Amino acid sequence: MKRRNFIAAAGAATVLTACGQQQDCATGEANNKPQETIEWNMVTTWPPGFQGLGTGAEYLAALIGKLSNGRITVKVFGAGELVPALQVFDAVSSGTVQMGHGASYYWKGKMPAASFFSSVPFGLNAQEMNGWLLKGGGLELWQELYAPFNLIPMPGGNTDIQMAGWFNKEINSVDDLKGLKMRIPGLGGEVLKRAGGNPELIAGGEIFSALEMGRIDAAEFVGPYNDLAFGFYKAAKYYYYPGWQEPGTTLEALINKQAFEQLPADLQDVVKTACLTANADMLAEFTEKNNEALRILVEEHGVQVKKLPQEVLDHLESISEKLVEEQGQANELSKRIYASYLDFKKKANAWKQISQSL
Amino acid sequence: MKRRNFIAAAGAATVLTACGQQQDCATGEANNKPQETIEWNMVTTWPPGFQGLGTGAEYLAALIGKLSNGRITVKVFGAGELVPALQVFDAVSSGTVQMGHGASYYWKGKMPAASFFSSVPFGLNAQEMNGWLLKGGGLELWQELYAPFNLIPMPGGNTDIQMAGWFNKEINSVDDLKGLKMRIPGLGGEVLKRAGGNPELIAGGEIFSALEMGRIDAAEFVGPYNDLAFGFYKAAKYYYYPGWQEPGTTLEALINKQAFEQLPADLQDVVKTACLTANADMLAEFTEKNNEALRILVEEHGVQVKKLPQEVLDHLESISEKLVEEQGQANELSKRIYASYLDFKKKANAWKQISQSL
Repeated sequence: MKRRNFIAAAGAATVLTACGQQQDCATGEANNKPQETIEWNMVTTWPPGFQGLGTGAEYLAALIGKLSNGRITVKVFGAGELVPALQVFDAVSSGTVQMGHGASYYWKGKMPAASFFSSVPFGLNAQEMNGWLLKGGGLELWQELYAPFNLIPMPGGNTDIQMAGWFNKEINSVDDLKGLKMRIPGLGGEVLKRAGGNPELIAGGEIFSALEMGRIDAAEFVGPYNDLAFGFYKAAKYYYYPGWQEPGTTLEALINKQAFEQLPADLQDVVKTACLTANADMLAEFTEKNNEALRILVEEHGVQVKKLPQEVLDHLESISEKLVEEQGQANELSKRIYASYLDFKKKANAWKQISQSL
Repeated sequence: MKRRNFIAAAGAATVLTACGQQQDCATGEANNKPQETIEWNMVTTWPPGFQGLGTGAEYLAALIGKLSNGRITVKVFGAGELVPALQVFDAVSSGTVQMGHGASYYWKGKMPAASFFSSVPFGLNAQEMNGWLLKGGGLELWQELYAPFNLIPMPGGNTDIQMAGWFNKEINSVDDLKGLKMRIPGLGGEVLKRAGGNPELIAGGEIFSALEMGRIDAAEFVGPYNDLAFGFYKAAKYYYYPGWQEPGTTLEALINKQAFEQLPADLQDVVKTACLTANADMLAEFTEKNNEALRILVEEHGVQVKKLPQEVLDHLESISEKLVEEQGQANELSKRIYASYLDFKKKANAWKQISQSL
């Protein structure tokens, strides 16, 4: 039932969008909106209403509506409501929907260099990602990478640095990584594998029981804000930091190229600016919420927060550097992306030693 | 001549604004713009075109124009072009102009608690300021503080953490602060004074010669991006960090309340969103430019970058804590501002130890 309604809604939106805003466009449906109203759909990789990430997508959609004075309305769909999470890229690429919200590392199967635009192990932090993307040439490279797919990417949020994860086994040396059964997807998982561990792919909703039942020794998810809500502190002894695997994850807003080009220039500015504002807004939210959630975890739930030993971090970093380099070798564009990222990171590291010294 | 033109321009804008967008409004001037065009002026505390800060104000003004599809145009004036830097607050408050761009600590003479909304010594960093202002109740308090002045403040930029400054005298202990003649305005200057130093008020354009002639021992300005452009490396031996006096300075956009309320709701959203976008954009710019400028200073100009000894930082911090507390005692509202800021800072410090540990 629900699925059928969503498909009907999507169909109507496609028709409306195909009309363009100047054409006389009869949809055959009751519609009180002015003729020029453009109805877009946004599919996301997040569970409906997922705090911080899903709500960030909703903030973005609402802001486009407000800034355009209702000339564009954007309807948001959680993962699986219109298309499954991992079909978001294709759905926007094909024009089935006009927008998407997710994270670029989900598409590293198509383009290994895509990971650079979300987060890579021991990579840029949140503020540095914004510096690279908005002022250091990163966004132009990202748009070049997605152009063959008919997609315009924009930064659309940031989770800040994440946590290393929830552990039921203490990590005192690199030997403790060997055989470690850990829920850790993506490049982080590959790093753990090269360090002798056993990364597992487990959906967010199943982490708790896997930890509680002892099917895994450890799991990384996001950071205090999301982790508190999922109650992982009830299923694991130690909460390790820092989140070396995701030091400042940028989320992406995807825009279908034809849908974007059909907009008048001012609405193109509205859509892009709304993405930039949502990008900053989510980081502010995670900054505030992580603080408070960490306090609750420690003070109210007695969580033991521990830092991974430097020896372990150094080992993971040396593995990561090689793996990250591999992501930037697929072709000429990948090499330029990697070179740009690495150059920014080197300069950023020098400034970070100064800026984080207070 | 120039001044007269500016005053004439401002007068015209005031007339237009007073008309509101629905009224039949004849200005008696040749005007090709559509009837509904609203012309605003923005005065700033920055030299015209000042990199990062003045250009950030220009970015904000241009963005309002683009997002509104030209329904609002905002003309930017550098310090002294229409009003002197330190009359920006009053000019927007009185409605002489509709917008301003500056920093709230310039108005601490009127309201000591104003400093909390730009930067205070050993206070929040840039990311934390955004967390507090946008999600932790800070902006609501700021708007309450400025409401009696007919002003709506918005965050409108951030310089990131600054540098401790340029020194021709080494600082090895707290004793070296005694008698130190240093260009350092605001609360930082007051802290230095309490530590036995001699803070001096010197305009930005005169710092270089004061350093070069030996009239002062040291000077703080902003950070590598701006400092490189001013060539201070030619007039001082050491470049000290961290910028304890300004750990993440938020700049402000000021909006005249009546001018704002005369806008239709969608243009109110446009103006506020443009401020938020400009706020994030400037931080991205400083993040990128500081990296590169630091590299140039060190590699091309051989600048000696030094960290202030921890003993000195600890001493300055203990003085700062008392001084900052004093800023939040003037009245009931000041106390609420201080309490909110301090609460956020305590929680943020716990998260910072985790987030900055990579």
